Amino acid sequence: MLDVTLLGCGGTMPLPGRWLTSLYVRCGGHGILIDCGEGTQIALKEAGLSAHSIDLILLTHYHGDHVMGLPGILMSMGMSGRQEPVTVVGPKHLTEIVPKLCAVAGFPFELRGLELTDPECEFTADFDPSLKIQAFHAQHSIVTYGYSLVKERRPKFDKERAEALGIPVRYWSRLQKGETITDSGVTYTPDMVLGEERKGLRVTCCTDTRPTERIVKYCRNADLAVLEGMYGSDERIEAAKVKKHMVFSEAAQIAQKAGAKELWLTHFSPSETRPEEWIENARSIFPESRCGTCGMHKELRFDNE
Amino acid sequence: MLDVTLLGCGGTMPLPGRWLTSLYVRCGGHGILIDCGEGTQIALKEAGLSAHSIDLILLTHYHGDHVMGLPGILMSMGMSGRQEPVTVVGPKHLTEIVPKLCAVAGFPFELRGLELTDPECEFTADFDPSLKIQAFHAQHSIVTYGYSLVKERRPKFDKERAEALGIPVRYWSRLQKGETITDSGVTYTPDMVLGEERKGLRVTCCTDTRPTERIVKYCRNADLAVLEGMYGSDERIEAAKVKKHMVFSEAAQIAQKAGAKELWLTHFSPSETRPEEWIENARSIFPESRCGTCGMHKELRFDNE
Repeated sequence: MLDVTLLGCGGTMPLPGRWLTSLYVRCGGHGILIDCGEGTQIALKEAGLSAHSIDLILLTHYHGDHVMGLPGILMSMGMSGRQEPVTVVGPKHLTEIVPKLCAVAGFPFELRGLELTDPECEFTADFDPSLKIQAFHAQHSIVTYGYSLVKERRPKFDKERAEALGIPVRYWSRLQKGETITDSGVTYTPDMVLGEERKGLRVTCCTDTRPTERIVKYCRNADLAVLEGMYGSDERIEAAKVKKHMVFSEAAQIAQKAGAKELWLTHFSPSETRPEEWIENARSIFPESRCGTCGMHKELRFDNE
Repeated sequence: MLDVTLLGCGGTMPLPGRWLTSLYVRCGGHGILIDCGEGTQIALKEAGLSAHSIDLILLTHYHGDHVMGLPGILMSMGMSGRQEPVTVVGPKHLTEIVPKLCAVAGFPFELRGLELTDPECEFTADFDPSLKIQAFHAQHSIVTYGYSLVKERRPKFDKERAEALGIPVRYWSRLQKGETITDSGVTYTPDMVLGEERKGLRVTCCTDTRPTERIVKYCRNADLAVLEGMYGSDERIEAAKVKKHMVFSEAAQIAQKAGAKELWLTHFSPSETRPEEWIENARSIFPESRCGTCGMHKELRFDNE
C-alpha cells in the first residue's frame, strides 16, 4: 500500500492557505517526502502526519521554493526524538547545498546524502527492498529530477506448480522470497514456485518542467501522476515555455498518453488564485484530472486487495 | 508613529495557527522586522502586510526558529520588485551564516550586513535619522540580542524664544532641523529656537533570555515591551532556567520594574497550547500584560497627537 498526501500545491512562494508543493508518501511505517519548501513541517502537521518517520527526502531541484523547509523539518524531527539516519537525495551539489541550508539547524541523527548524476537512475529504498525509486531528468531552467515510487508486488505462491515440479517443501518459503537453492546438484529457482507477475503500484511526481517524452515514460500506467500545472489557461503557454513550466493541458496530455489512472495538478503560480476554475482544460483531455489542494490524500492498494 | 504587529508568538517550531515569534514595526513607509523564522513571509501576508518595504531586519540570535525564514522573505521581496538594499543586523558570524542560509535564494538587491560585537550599542536607521536602534545582550545559551526601537520626537519650535533672542527669521527652519549656523561671527544653535524635550516612543523586544537588569534598563518607560513568556506557570521556572528562557511572571516583573506601559508575552513553548490560561500569572504583577497572538497590532502615537 502507498498512502499519498499532497502537502502543498503552491509554486514560487507560500501563501496563506496554500503551502508549497510537497508530496508525502507513506509505505509501511516509512515516510518519503518529495520536496520540502518553507512551511512543509507545518503542512505535515496540518495533514495530521508526523515528520518523525520520514526516512527519505527526495529533492527535485535547488530552487528555494522546493528546499527551504529542509532545515526546519530536520530540526523538528530531531525534537520529536528521531535518532535514525535520514537520507536526502537530489541533483549534483547536494553535499554542498544541504550543509549550508542547515548551517543553524541542529539535529541528533546522521544525514546521508545521495547525489544524482545520470539523467535516469533507479535505487532501492533501504527500508523496503520492494520499493524502487526511479529518478529522471525533467526539463527546467536548472537540473531538475522527477521521481517515480514503484512498489513491487511479489507473484503469488503457486503450490500446484511447486508440487508438479517436485520441489522439496522445505525450500518453498526461501524460494518464494527470491532465493536460488542448490541441493545435491539440483538447482531450484524462485520462478519454479511462483505464479505470474502481479502489478505493483506506481506514483510519479514531476514539477518544474516542460512536457517531455521521458516524463510520459515514467508516468506509464502510473496509479497516480502528480504533475505541474503552473497555469490553468492555454493562453499562458508562452509564459510557461519561457519559465520552463507546464500549463494544465500539457500535464493532462502526459497523463493521457501514459495511460495513468489519475492526475493531480499542483505547483500553481501565486497568480492562479482559483486554479479549480481551469480544471476543464485538463479534464477535456484526461478525465481523471484533479486540482491539487493542500492535504489531498489517496490510499493506493494492490489490485484485489 | 510606530505601527507594531506581532507576526507570530511561537517558540522552537512553527505550529498550525501559530507562527514563530517575529515582530514587524512600521515607521513611516519603512518596515523593520525583528527575527524571521520559517513561515514569517506567510505570517506577514496573513497580517495584511507586505514584505516589499522592509528596510531593516534585526536578528536576535542564530537559533533556527529565529532565522530560517530569512531566505524566503528575501526572495519574496525580490519577486515583489524590491531593488533597494536591505540591511540585516545580528550577532557575530552574521556574514558567514546569512550567505549560507541564502545559498539557493536569489534576489535582485544588495544585502548589507551589520555584525554586532559590543554588549550594548546604538545606531541610527539609514532611512530615518530620528529612529534609533539600540541592541543589548540578553542572557541565552548563545549570544543573543534584544532590541529597542526609539523614535525620537523633536522639541516644538519656540517662536517666542527665537524672537526674544533675535534670531534672524531666515535661519529658523535650519536651526529647527538641528543645524548650527554662524553668521558675521555670531553662532546660532538649535536650542535657541526649540522648546523643551518631548517624549518619543520606545518599543523593546527581547526573547530567548533569562531576566536581567539590562533588559529592565532597555524596557525603561517603554510604550511597549515584547518579552518572552516561554512557559505560563511558575512551576516551569527550573526548565526555563536550564534552557535560558523566561516564564510569564519573570517577564511581568521586568515590565513592572521598568515602568513600561504595556507588555506583550510571546515565544510560547509548543507545549503551551493555551497560553492565555496563564495570563493572570503576569497580570497579578503587571496589569497591562497581554498574551501575544499572531497578527496582534498596536499603533503607537506621540502623546497628544
